[in-house]
Amino acid sequence: MARLIYTDDVGDPRLDDFRELSTADRRPDRPGGRGFVIAEGTVVVRRLLESAYPVRALLGVERRIADLAADLAGTEVPAYVTSAETMAEVVGFHLNRGVLAVADKAPQPDAAELADRARVLAVLEGVGDHENLGSIFRNAAALGIDGVLLGPGCADPLYRRSVRVSMGNVLRVPFGLLQPWPSGLEWLRDKGFRVAALTPRAEAVSLRAFGSAGAGKVAVLLGSEGPGLSAEALAAAGDAVRIDMADGVDSLNVATAAAVAFYELGRRG
Amino acid sequence: MARLIYTDDVGDPRLDDFRELSTADRRPDRPGGRGFVIAEGTVVVRRLLESAYPVRALLGVERRIADLAADLAGTEVPAYVTSAETMAEVVGFHLNRGVLAVADKAPQPDAAELADRARVLAVLEGVGDHENLGSIFRNAAALGIDGVLLGPGCADPLYRRSVRVSMGNVLRVPFGLLQPWPSGLEWLRDKGFRVAALTPRAEAVSLRAFGSAGAGKVAVLLGSEGPGLSAEALAAAGDAVRIDMADGVDSLNVATAAAVAFYELGRRG
Repeated sequence: MARLIYTDDVGDPRLDDFRELSTADRRPDRPGGRGFVIAEGTVVVRRLLESAYPVRALLGVERRIADLAADLAGTEVPAYVTSAETMAEVVGFHLNRGVLAVADKAPQPDAAELADRARVLAVLEGVGDHENLGSIFRNAAALGIDGVLLGPGCADPLYRRSVRVSMGNVLRVPFGLLQPWPSGLEWLRDKGFRVAALTPRAEAVSLRAFGSAGAGKVAVLLGSEGPGLSAEALAAAGDAVRIDMADGVDSLNVATAAAVAFYELGRRG
Repeated sequence: MARLIYTDDVGDPRLDDFRELSTADRRPDRPGGRGFVIAEGTVVVRRLLESAYPVRALLGVERRIADLAADLAGTEVPAYVTSAETMAEVVGFHLNRGVLAVADKAPQPDAAELADRARVLAVLEGVGDHENLGSIFRNAAALGIDGVLLGPGCADPLYRRSVRVSMGNVLRVPFGLLQPWPSGLEWLRDKGFRVAALTPRAEAVSLRAFGSAGAGKVAVLLGSEGPGLSAEALAAAGDAVRIDMADGVDSLNVATAAAVAFYELGRRG
């Protein structure tokens, strides 16, 4: 069993990892930040405990810590138990999920490692919105994507909001950087991947036709909502693929489009 | 051309339709509310102008009203032009989209009318979250769904947040109530629809297998995130269909699951 430590002292220095989490310097993606990975709520804390990230501590109300008893068994992670009010004062805002965990970052796999063991990858360019990014990881985990490669302009998947929106799946789906750009896409093709750039362009092949063409290695390339993929990335991809849509309708949200492509191209069963 | 009316008077009674929009009595789904349909931003205002809803007026900054000049040509809708500051004071909060329109409600088609002219319908039970509901309409419009039937426990698609998240597609995709419940599902089956209840249950048939079984009339039945469909609705549906997912992963967001099902079962091309 983890070490349960009861405290109701807002100033307790053992809670410093959890202090003022909404301030910018707690963001893992900012230079000078503490760089912790932060999990909120029992589901996501459980994912963090199962992950390779070294968990430093938990902070939660008694009931939520109790919910995690089985997950904490056999670990030496300190679990600080306090009231919702003390928790809110330490953290700097009210958390209705009642439990938090912090972990140190861990090394990410490099792109070659990811490419070698994957059949289906997602590759992202310019996905700077933390919620879209988190949703893409949630959809990737559900729909059989083996890993995510991040091109330029992407947010940090380990930022608190991405972790939460992903339901902790940023902690399970391996990701790494794809550099340089866009020649990394050509490198992926040399590795045997068809690189399918998702685009609304009419001249692109339909996703259904592309999906039925066989089950080789595929990398689904997704751009940001709004501007979409850069011309350079589209050119380097090799294949342009579109989701058939009704006339006059705006494109889908990027995470929704990703889900549809993952459903068509991801591992099945 | 619409009538352009310049005003900078926060108290101007002609702006009363736009006043204090965030207060509860402006919600179309609450008894005693004014019941207006409210569109925010040029894209959604354009959709409202194209719709059957009788538009009462626009309020916007000069540049946004100018963006809509072509859409306003040939209408007699008054367009009040003011500053961003006056707009914020009237509306009660700052709108970064710079233009609003209000319309009266219009009669919705009844379920029989919708069922008679549709090949693919979505049917919702307990989708009470305005954002999920709006996203479902956005996805329905993009992926070839002819109409939406609302069972019990659903939010009002015409509430401002649903309208916005749907990108105005609640104004284009026809919807109506399906009553009584769940016998309305049996009525749909008598009308020739296969009713496919989306569920994570292992014993359900896979969406892919269900989709490949033919192109007849289909109604996709979706429940709320969390509790999912009621046992009564599942029993009345006739078909239970699941999206294949990786082991140990939480189900997809309901609007994302809807998109995947709509992609598989919606009208193509």
